[in-house]
Amino acid sequence: MLYDVIIVGGGPAATAAAVYTARKQLKTLVITESFGGQSIVSDDIQNWIGEQHISGFDLAKKFEEHVRSFGDIVEIKSPEKAIKISAIKCERAGFSCDFEVETELGNRYEGKSIIMTAGARRRKLGIPGEEAFNGKGVAYCSTCDAPLFSGKVVAVVGGGNAGLEAIIDLLPYATKTYLLIRGDSLKGDESTQNEIKKNPKVEIIFNAITDEIKGISMVTGLLYHDAVTNEKKELAIGGIFVEIGSVPNSEIVKDLVKIDAFGQIVVDKFSATSYSGIFAAGDITDDPFKQNNISAGDGVKAALSAYGYLLQLKKRSPATEKQ
Amino acid sequence: MLYDVIIVGGGPAATAAAVYTARKQLKTLVITESFGGQSIVSDDIQNWIGEQHISGFDLAKKFEEHVRSFGDIVEIKSPEKAIKISAIKCERAGFSCDFEVETELGNRYEGKSIIMTAGARRRKLGIPGEEAFNGKGVAYCSTCDAPLFSGKVVAVVGGGNAGLEAIIDLLPYATKTYLLIRGDSLKGDESTQNEIKKNPKVEIIFNAITDEIKGISMVTGLLYHDAVTNEKKELAIGGIFVEIGSVPNSEIVKDLVKIDAFGQIVVDKFSATSYSGIFAAGDITDDPFKQNNISAGDGVKAALSAYGYLLQLKKRSPATEKQ
Repeated sequence: MLYDVIIVGGGPAATAAAVYTARKQLKTLVITESFGGQSIVSDDIQNWIGEQHISGFDLAKKFEEHVRSFGDIVEIKSPEKAIKISAIKCERAGFSCDFEVETELGNRYEGKSIIMTAGARRRKLGIPGEEAFNGKGVAYCSTCDAPLFSGKVVAVVGGGNAGLEAIIDLLPYATKTYLLIRGDSLKGDESTQNEIKKNPKVEIIFNAITDEIKGISMVTGLLYHDAVTNEKKELAIGGIFVEIGSVPNSEIVKDLVKIDAFGQIVVDKFSATSYSGIFAAGDITDDPFKQNNISAGDGVKAALSAYGYLLQLKKRSPATEKQ
Repeated sequence: MLYDVIIVGGGPAATAAAVYTARKQLKTLVITESFGGQSIVSDDIQNWIGEQHISGFDLAKKFEEHVRSFGDIVEIKSPEKAIKISAIKCERAGFSCDFEVETELGNRYEGKSIIMTAGARRRKLGIPGEEAFNGKGVAYCSTCDAPLFSGKVVAVVGGGNAGLEAIIDLLPYATKTYLLIRGDSLKGDESTQNEIKKNPKVEIIFNAITDEIKGISMVTGLLYHDAVTNEKKELAIGGIFVEIGSVPNSEIVKDLVKIDAFGQIVVDKFSATSYSGIFAAGDITDDPFKQNNISAGDGVKAALSAYGYLLQLKKRSPATEKQ
């Protein structure tokens, strides 16, 4: 079986891509560990356009149902994890290749094109309480979740631009914010640093090594110690944003497509990668903003670009083939 | 009153932009003739990600409600039509300007940044029956609506690439398609032309001037005449795709931002235009694919770029100002 498109991933980018390849009657395979993407842990998503409130779980369910409604043309392998992608049967090196996707179960699937939508995984602190209170006061995206912390005292962990921006995002909502930094100085944009330093609602704590997140049903406190004095301390907080970066799940295509210094797949405005026939969308790419609606929109672009690729470059019409 | 952001438009791009500027606590003004965008006429949208079926009317309602839920920070002027945008109070020419938006009612609004999401209007045939059966067999977007015409005989009007692509989109669904062209030869991509010419389900009619769309509750026929012989003819059809291009509503910023040959605002992958402080998303831009989810995703990008612009370039934090 040679699929027209193999989509790797199950979040909003993958869903959007699958809906559009299905509607273009491209024989599609979706390989994913799960549906929903990173926001599946959110209790209350308020920025999925058109929905004032929806849980990550419910949104994931809508995604999966939409994809599964095209069962005649979209095959789904889930849970299954893609571990390697190779270019095969190229007309000439790197041109008009087919692709083979190998999975953890040892299966091999072949497709004429690939849409990479495997997302990213947030870097975690790896301390007790972090998993238990994920979505219950522990958050990883201030653009997404800052408004949920209205009237609360919040800690932000991370001294780079993401940490600074989280503070800025929280200023209109939180009554006080702590910024915990491992080192002894701020990094990131200077004008933002200045905004933060002069704001009386912000307290910066240097040399802070986080030890444990405490809570009952929701986060109530953060234990940390001073890296220099070793002194143990506790903050009473209602929320904590972990802003120490994320790792794109791009390893399996890193030998084929151009990857930036952060491990992100470089895409153009058509969601095309540097490798002919491989497209990408969502948090796995170098798009600077990681948001569900952006992933969905760029997933549509990836699908329509893949359709155009199959139609034009290979000089054959996938739609016509099926008549 | 100087708004942080003025959003011109009311479709998915405008909605997405407003939701995100609101959540970033930017004082926002939305000026729009109506909510919902071009797909408001669709009876059954099947490709809004997460919704297997939703009417254009219901989706428009969800958009408007989502924007209105931020009433404390988002002001809405609707129905009101923006007719001119000027750069004012620039630090130096074209740099760090504010903007003035003038409307048909004679009102003037000032903002620190602009997000243009005023969409496009489809070129219409301007023949009897076209308005009456819009969304009832008359369609303007084959990527959106081809699957609705399963098992039907369909006419496509338009000899450029859009017409050819509409035929390709319809092949898996329609039992027969007529392609009506005003001139005596096909235009558009040659490989697609060849696909179409050799397909027995496609009949190309040259020198065809459309006269009237007929129907009862839905489209039933198309009257046209031959431009050379003047002979009048009628086709029995269940649907008609008008694929003769669209006109972006970009006139009001054409002296400020870079516009392409099709009147589309040129944007980069951050939804930024060539003019500092003006952002754009959706069908008004040169994004090659015009789809609701793409507009929403790029609307989010425009909002986050505007936020970054206000934060960084003007060396001031809009969020902090409000404390």
